[in-house]
Amino acid sequence: MNVEAFMADRRVGIWLVGALGGVGSTVALGLAALREQCTSPRGMMTALPLFDGVDLDSPDQFVLGGHDIRRGDLLSSVSDLARDASIFDPTVIRAVQSHLSEWSKNIRPGTVLNSGDAIAALADRPDLPSTRSPREAIASMRADISDFRDRHKLDQVVVVNVASTEPPFSLTADHGSIGQLNERLDDPAFLPVSSLYAYAAIDSGWPYVNFTPSTGASVPGLVDLAIQRGSPIAGQDGKTGETLLKSVLAPMFAARNLRILSWVGHNILGNRDGQVLHDPRNKAGKMLAKDRIVSEILDYSPQTHTSIEYIESLNDWKTAWDHVHFEGFLGVKMTLQFTWQGCDSALAAPLVIDLARLALLAGRRKESGILTHLACFFKSPMGVTEHDFSRQMTMLAEYVRTLQTR
Amino acid sequence: MNVEAFMADRRVGIWLVGALGGVGSTVALGLAALREQCTSPRGMMTALPLFDGVDLDSPDQFVLGGHDIRRGDLLSSVSDLARDASIFDPTVIRAVQSHLSEWSKNIRPGTVLNSGDAIAALADRPDLPSTRSPREAIASMRADISDFRDRHKLDQVVVVNVASTEPPFSLTADHGSIGQLNERLDDPAFLPVSSLYAYAAIDSGWPYVNFTPSTGASVPGLVDLAIQRGSPIAGQDGKTGETLLKSVLAPMFAARNLRILSWVGHNILGNRDGQVLHDPRNKAGKMLAKDRIVSEILDYSPQTHTSIEYIESLNDWKTAWDHVHFEGFLGVKMTLQFTWQGCDSALAAPLVIDLARLALLAGRRKESGILTHLACFFKSPMGVTEHDFSRQMTMLAEYVRTLQTR
Amino acid sequence: MNVEAFMADRRVGIWLVGALGGVGSTVALGLAALREQCTSPRGMMTALPLFDGVDLDSPDQFVLGGHDIRRGDLLSSVSDLARDASIFDPTVIRAVQSHLSEWSKNIRPGTVLNSGDAIAALADRPDLPSTRSPREAIASMRADISDFRDRHKLDQVVVVNVASTEPPFSLTADHGSIGQLNERLDDPAFLPVSSLYAYAAIDSGWPYVNFTPSTGASVPGLVDLAIQRGSPIAGQDGKTGETLLKSVLAPMFAARNLRILSWVGHNILGNRDGQVLHDPRNKAGKMLAKDRIVSEILDYSPQTHTSIEYIESLNDWKTAWDHVHFEGFLGVKMTLQFTWQGCDSALAAPLVIDLARLALLAGRRKESGILTHLACFFKSPMGVTEHDFSRQMTMLAEYVRTLQTR
Amino acid sequence: MNVEAFMADRRVGIWLVGALGGVGSTVALGLAALREQCTSPRGMMTALPLFDGVDLDSPDQFVLGGHDIRRGDLLSSVSDLARDASIFDPTVIRAVQSHLSEWSKNIRPGTVLNSGDAIAALADRPDLPSTRSPREAIASMRADISDFRDRHKLDQVVVVNVASTEPPFSLTADHGSIGQLNERLDDPAFLPVSSLYAYAAIDSGWPYVNFTPSTGASVPGLVDLAIQRGSPIAGQDGKTGETLLKSVLAPMFAARNLRILSWVGHNILGNRDGQVLHDPRNKAGKMLAKDRIVSEILDYSPQTHTSIEYIESLNDWKTAWDHVHFEGFLGVKMTLQFTWQGCDSALAAPLVIDLARLALLAGRRKESGILTHLACFFKSPMGVTEHDFSRQMTMLAEYVRTLQTR
Repeated sequence: MNVEAFMADRRVGIWLVGALGGVGSTVALGLAALREQCTSPRGMMTALPLFDGVDLDSPDQFVLGGHDIRRGDLLSSVSDLARDASIFDPTVIRAVQSHLSEWSKNIRPGTVLNSGDAIAALADRPDLPSTRSPREAIASMRADISDFRDRHKLDQVVVVNVASTEPPFSLTADHGSIGQLNERLDDPAFLPVSSLYAYAAIDSGWPYVNFTPSTGASVPGLVDLAIQRGSPIAGQDGKTGETLLKSVLAPMFAARNLRILSWVGHNILGNRDGQVLHDPRNKAGKMLAKDRIVSEILDYSPQTHTSIEYIESLNDWKTAWDHVHFEGFLGVKMTLQFTWQGCDSALAAPLVIDLARLALLAGRRKESGILTHLACFFKSPMGVTEHDFSRQMTMLAEYVRTLQTR
Repeated sequence: MNVEAFMADRRVGIWLVGALGGVGSTVALGLAALREQCTSPRGMMTALPLFDGVDLDSPDQFVLGGHDIRRGDLLSSVSDLARDASIFDPTVIRAVQSHLSEWSKNIRPGTVLNSGDAIAALADRPDLPSTRSPREAIASMRADISDFRDRHKLDQVVVVNVASTEPPFSLTADHGSIGQLNERLDDPAFLPVSSLYAYAAIDSGWPYVNFTPSTGASVPGLVDLAIQRGSPIAGQDGKTGETLLKSVLAPMFAARNLRILSWVGHNILGNRDGQVLHDPRNKAGKMLAKDRIVSEILDYSPQTHTSIEYIESLNDWKTAWDHVHFEGFLGVKMTLQFTWQGCDSALAAPLVIDLARLALLAGRRKESGILTHLACFFKSPMGVTEHDFSRQMTMLAEYVRTLQTR
Repeated sequence: MNVEAFMADRRVGIWLVGALGGVGSTVALGLAALREQCTSPRGMMTALPLFDGVDLDSPDQFVLGGHDIRRGDLLSSVSDLARDASIFDPTVIRAVQSHLSEWSKNIRPGTVLNSGDAIAALADRPDLPSTRSPREAIASMRADISDFRDRHKLDQVVVVNVASTEPPFSLTADHGSIGQLNERLDDPAFLPVSSLYAYAAIDSGWPYVNFTPSTGASVPGLVDLAIQRGSPIAGQDGKTGETLLKSVLAPMFAARNLRILSWVGHNILGNRDGQVLHDPRNKAGKMLAKDRIVSEILDYSPQTHTSIEYIESLNDWKTAWDHVHFEGFLGVKMTLQFTWQGCDSALAAPLVIDLARLALLAGRRKESGILTHLACFFKSPMGVTEHDFSRQMTMLAEYVRTLQTR
Repeated sequence: MNVEAFMADRRVGIWLVGALGGVGSTVALGLAALREQCTSPRGMMTALPLFDGVDLDSPDQFVLGGHDIRRGDLLSSVSDLARDASIFDPTVIRAVQSHLSEWSKNIRPGTVLNSGDAIAALADRPDLPSTRSPREAIASMRADISDFRDRHKLDQVVVVNVASTEPPFSLTADHGSIGQLNERLDDPAFLPVSSLYAYAAIDSGWPYVNFTPSTGASVPGLVDLAIQRGSPIAGQDGKTGETLLKSVLAPMFAARNLRILSWVGHNILGNRDGQVLHDPRNKAGKMLAKDRIVSEILDYSPQTHTSIEYIESLNDWKTAWDHVHFEGFLGVKMTLQFTWQGCDSALAAPLVIDLARLALLAGRRKESGILTHLACFFKSPMGVTEHDFSRQMTMLAEYVRTLQTR
């Protein structure tokens, strides 16, 4: 495995927005377990031979911190998840307990400013700051990250959004440039909370990754800012399960000239993300990307339907049933159905680590603005219209080849 | 649709080994229906924009003929299939009735020499030739094809094997070159029947395509002969359903570094192909390719199991259930299941037409020997180790690009 | 088969509300085909040995008529369904063409008075009566049925509602007795349209069956009237597919003391019923019964979710995916999933014929009011709280035994 | 819960043949956990209200012992299962550790005399007795059980076979009575090993339950003996998953007069039972019962196919895919598919405890010979031809009612 091969003198930080959630705490468990060599990097793309020789940060170079709006600590988050979803080996958890405790100290109170009701309802930290404007919130976030960096003497920090999904946010002309945007930073409703974290990271010159469907850095003004500050940005919405399958299956039907008549996807899940999606406003954000990918891959628009429901007993096990109805030669109608039973956090966490490593690398290489070569990680890749997973993989492979030929 | 765009002065023949089977008769129905413009080329890869401007033969340039060991005619084969599988529009069948009757006259008795018991048991034509040696059988086949060509004044003929699967055949040193092979042509057990048809086609200088798992042209001596005679050859075993899915899904798991623990595929079907597979010897041939593809795509060998059962009531509807068990980050075990309900003949027939068009093109372009760019059509592509469908598609696209840039 | 064994001198009518829909026209095709002996009574419970010796009407004793709000005739409805859903043998349709034409003459314009917008939008008959009050509409319906009876010299008529689902309707104290109800019959919004047909049938002394989730006879005042007039009534909402499965599977889990944690059902269908359910108001009526049955069988209420979506390409093929999550010994969580691919009309039509035969029998036996022994046919059986299918079957078998021991 | 309600002065033993297997060790864990009140009796039928007031033994009245041919102890068996199948709460295991250790001392070496090669290959206990004849083996088994009883001062002992499946065994005329049978007890091949344990239990006057497809007490001579000795016997082959579903679904299709065209079941599992089934001889025993149940419920024989494959990664998670093809009204062919993902040991263990309680009760009530009221527990119920689960449940309920009305 190539993760152990790297130089240990560089120190980097991963700052998670929503650090105590399922994905956040699994990232922590995973990084610690890799460091203690009590797990393998299964599920991490950057551990594949493709990345051999690339100067990525190894697990023991990472320090973890983040924002959260809920009380708690990493160990109890991980333990609850392990028990409720029947996952993780208890001996691994025990082995990394001290790292989790140490990193829990780096978790600062987040903000619910313009986060929407469903998310605000989850907030139970007594020390949430009472910031009243985007400007104020951003300043406070910047200070938290900066303090984290100083205390741990980090060479770089990457900020990754792994918080629950906000309601969709409509951009206006005022979001069109960093100049206009800066003028409105005293209007509490001007930016959704995910974009405040993005602003803070980008403005600090750090790489920023949006693993969620929330707006994050997908604001023209923030892309401006990223270029100005030299911050690499990537997003949005990690492609971990059902949508990943859509992005390999839809191209197959297209290549075979089989016409998709309808594509129905029904998702059920029971973790906190699912709970937030119970609010129809938050759900709307999630559905859009999941649903439109099929039409974006094909050159026509079959009837599609995607639904997602919160089913408590499933906990972190997101189960998707997809029914694809298609027409072949001489009008014959046929069907493909699949059921995907995936553990959300275990699918997302290794990709978050991959993205952190690749964004940190991009930062060191002075790449700024959107990292289009990371499209294969996302449901709605910023700056890229290609949704075919194998073509997105080719884009990534070409980027890596460029690095290696230097 | 680009199939109408071609010049009509060239005349080509498609000679089907097993012309009256489900695939053969659907090819006939489809070609006739395309000619009468009462269906669309759905399911045909060569009707995609990728092939725009390529000099492929249009449906009205084709005459159809073939060998079969069973009595009957194309119209009754098609009508039986339509009734038993609840497929095809009766108005389409009526519209092309005269073509089917005309082409039925071109169907000559095949041979059961070394075809195995299960296939021999299907033979019920009273006029089957009593050839006693490969040499004699090949001569008779050549004469049939040559006669077909002469009567219809064809510029070219392509021979496609769409007959039921033979038992697997073990090659020996004597099959290693055309010289050695020719010396043994009086030994009735020296070559399986599929290879006799292949020999006849290749020796005549015509392109030959093996759409089945039977041996066909996959004999070193016959590859020799193809190069000597300038015959393009392609095969083997059309990739139409479950295996196609394996060839897009296995690369997805590999790209995401998710370790496949086991991959089980259970196929059920009820057509004549299924009946022949009831014989464990014939089934062995089919299973091998279906089962090993996963290990050939991955760089390790998970436990795999593929079974196929003859379930009469399903008729032409091949149904496959696949269960993929895989391990992700931190040892979490997850599952993907899919059910594919495809109509075998309707999936295979358009690909047979595609292959005929592409092999005829290759023949005109003086390409001889194995057409490796056709790997995406086959479960066991001759001369190619690549099984990843998207990479195979890239190979085909590159070939087409070469044509277009001339 | 016992359907041929009955005396042919009695003549009965089946009057279908929504005669030209998928279920209605399949009932017509089936009755005619049984009469011409070109199909078997597959799917009809009353053709089972259980009913041997019971004095039920045979297919050739039936004349068919009904109401509809759409133009058209039975032959074209049946032919469209056959083509769009790839079902039915064309030779059967041809064989019964004359019956379908004859019966089409018995179809009278229905009414859209208080039917809801989604159903009203389907109405395209130019001769729809412009009734303005329930009283007027009922009188007109009674006249249509009475005229049907007279013209065909029928001994009895049974009225069956097979029309599309209305929005749910809230009953008030004024619906509580036939006296109160009669006083409000000039208020156009007082009764939903399904109850007007029910009123007309019951008031005429005929048996009435409600095969839909619409209100129909499920109004205390109408139950009163049924007892007064000696009319047998049965309903509501035919149990044909997913819910039938729930009613055998939920008791199995209960008997084994396996605790259901959640039960999710996702239905997709593409026929006119599906189209009407696209309107959330109409869907609400359908969902309620489908969803609550699990909790009604168990003695606790697990989380349940049932959804239904209109997917045009599926036409009459209703496909349901159910995911049952349950807990066994020592807290182990397990899963049952099923996919049901059923053709709605072909599942419903034989049960409609069964119900017509059993309701006509009850009429002759002077049974009046709710026929509780027919609970096994319905999702929401009137007057019965038992939802376990095998126990409902026992109720029916006991009723039949009573008949036979006389 | 009613299990706590019983008198504690009676002491009973449960003697498991194959005590260290998945089922055996889960029975131990479960009994101990119920005793310590750290789990609920989920999955136990005898914990349902149906059994209120019936004099069954409570968990704290049980002592556990048994035979096994493998080394090991209950705690390590349970811990291995918990880790490999991701099941059981570690706190429960810790809480009952002392019971498991105590009971492990009661496990005596079994015998492999005539067990078949696959089972013999599992034997690794160094102290396996070198018994050379059935007579000798039976005597040794009787002594083990008798010693267990004496040491623990037990009022009764019930012997339950939960060992891996033997190859099927053909009975001869000599097995027809206990007289003939006794004469052949020096012939090592005369009885399969499962029948030796059965003989020992029955001859001792103890109740005997065969939870496996192995022969056990299903030998006419042993039924004779049971009546002579006053021993209740029950079996055979616990109905825990796929077959249970068949026994509720097949009656549903029959009740609705829907004709089953084919029923295919494909089972995959990875525990020791699966490993033993890898041997085609052992598999044959298992398949027979699974496959024939559908035809035994229906009054005709559709094509059925059942397969079972050992897939190591699944461990104790037996996954079954069933495809049911059926014909409805007017010849329309439809499909039901289900996937059952059940944990074998967690499904079987509570039923073993149920059977032990019910067989001990029968023993106290002086019921001898076959307990036909226990048919609902078995795939191949001894002495009963009824396979419809709901009717089998009625048989059990009637038995319980008899007890209660005394």
